[in-house]
Amino acid sequence: MGQIGPSELSGSLSRATAQRLSQYLRCLRPALTGTTVSSSQLARAVGVSDAQVRRDLATLGNLGQRGIGYDANALTAVIRRTLGIDRTWKSVIVGVGNLARALLRYRGFHEQGFEIVGLFDNDPHKIGTQVDGLTIDSLDQLASSIKTSKAELGVIAVPPESAQLVADELTRAGIKGLLNFAPALLKIAPHIRLVTVDLAIQFEQLAYLVRLSRTSENGE
Amino acid sequence: MGQIGPSELSGSLSRATAQRLSQYLRCLRPALTGTTVSSSQLARAVGVSDAQVRRDLATLGNLGQRGIGYDANALTAVIRRTLGIDRTWKSVIVGVGNLARALLRYRGFHEQGFEIVGLFDNDPHKIGTQVDGLTIDSLDQLASSIKTSKAELGVIAVPPESAQLVADELTRAGIKGLLNFAPALLKIAPHIRLVTVDLAIQFEQLAYLVRLSRTSENGE
Repeated sequence: MGQIGPSELSGSLSRATAQRLSQYLRCLRPALTGTTVSSSQLARAVGVSDAQVRRDLATLGNLGQRGIGYDANALTAVIRRTLGIDRTWKSVIVGVGNLARALLRYRGFHEQGFEIVGLFDNDPHKIGTQVDGLTIDSLDQLASSIKTSKAELGVIAVPPESAQLVADELTRAGIKGLLNFAPALLKIAPHIRLVTVDLAIQFEQLAYLVRLSRTSENGE
Repeated sequence: MGQIGPSELSGSLSRATAQRLSQYLRCLRPALTGTTVSSSQLARAVGVSDAQVRRDLATLGNLGQRGIGYDANALTAVIRRTLGIDRTWKSVIVGVGNLARALLRYRGFHEQGFEIVGLFDNDPHKIGTQVDGLTIDSLDQLASSIKTSKAELGVIAVPPESAQLVADELTRAGIKGLLNFAPALLKIAPHIRLVTVDLAIQFEQLAYLVRLSRTSENGE
């Protein structure tokens, strides 16, 4: 199984560290930070401790200057290179419902180097129609289309009962990483990387935080 | 700022532990596990180590029986109570675009105790129309509607440039927790809890994992 929990180590950085690097990247906009940025600015913006920011950035090399901070452009470049987003990642989406449409219109994907090059669905009413300049193809065309486009990432945006089938098809078509939005646990080949976005889990985490804060207010 | 990083402690459980509890919950379906479940079954399903599962579940009390495992129903109840989802959380969505429609149709929300009780938008073409049995109201009605429905959680599904304004309105209306899908860093009052779902970050994490696996294959 390629499913990896949030705290498990995967190579040189833990998943948690890699996630924080993504969050720091969000704050490294010249308009927000100026040309240099301090660890405490990043810490405040992301909501972690100063020490955590310094530890995370120390893993990337000797980047900061004492009393001055980090060069925002240099730090951006190093984080992008570390995460592997210093180049374009061609991606396809399978299942063209509301979620796929939301993803297509999500600003920031293209900005961060993700290019959607293919849309696939098995609904005959959708096949052949266009969404944001891309024609929806049938699932039969998945393998040949991915071979031509050299797409590496596949987004699974189908109902849970079809998710495993789609994951298998994408694997056969030569995709290397899967971003799964279906609330389903997938069995995938060991050479495939999987990130699951379970929207209900995000809701649960919010409920947990609200419950905690209320418990502490009531002195329970 | 109520924005909390993935590794920061928030009360009794770390965010990472709370997230894993949510993931274990996904696997605790009788059809998947039978009436008892072992730590290794949960470990395999979620993709963490056996020891991690046992450590996480030990924080919830003395639940397992050596050689037998955990009672699936009892474990489900304890995790739901710990996360605060042993009751219904009324929620509203602001911004009724593709993402909101996807969320409304996302199975599992209702199942996990989240009930969408209000939809809000500022587009006059949308106000007054119905989506999945709910009427879209204008933002002016937010405060009175939340007062009546006693909604506690607010989902921000608007473009990034409107996200701060919507967060402020939801805060004024008495919402306690915000689930933010807009790629924007929000400043919020300390008594409000915030979970940000940045879809580009999920993509970046996938790119990072694929890049890592390729680096190790090439022996770089």
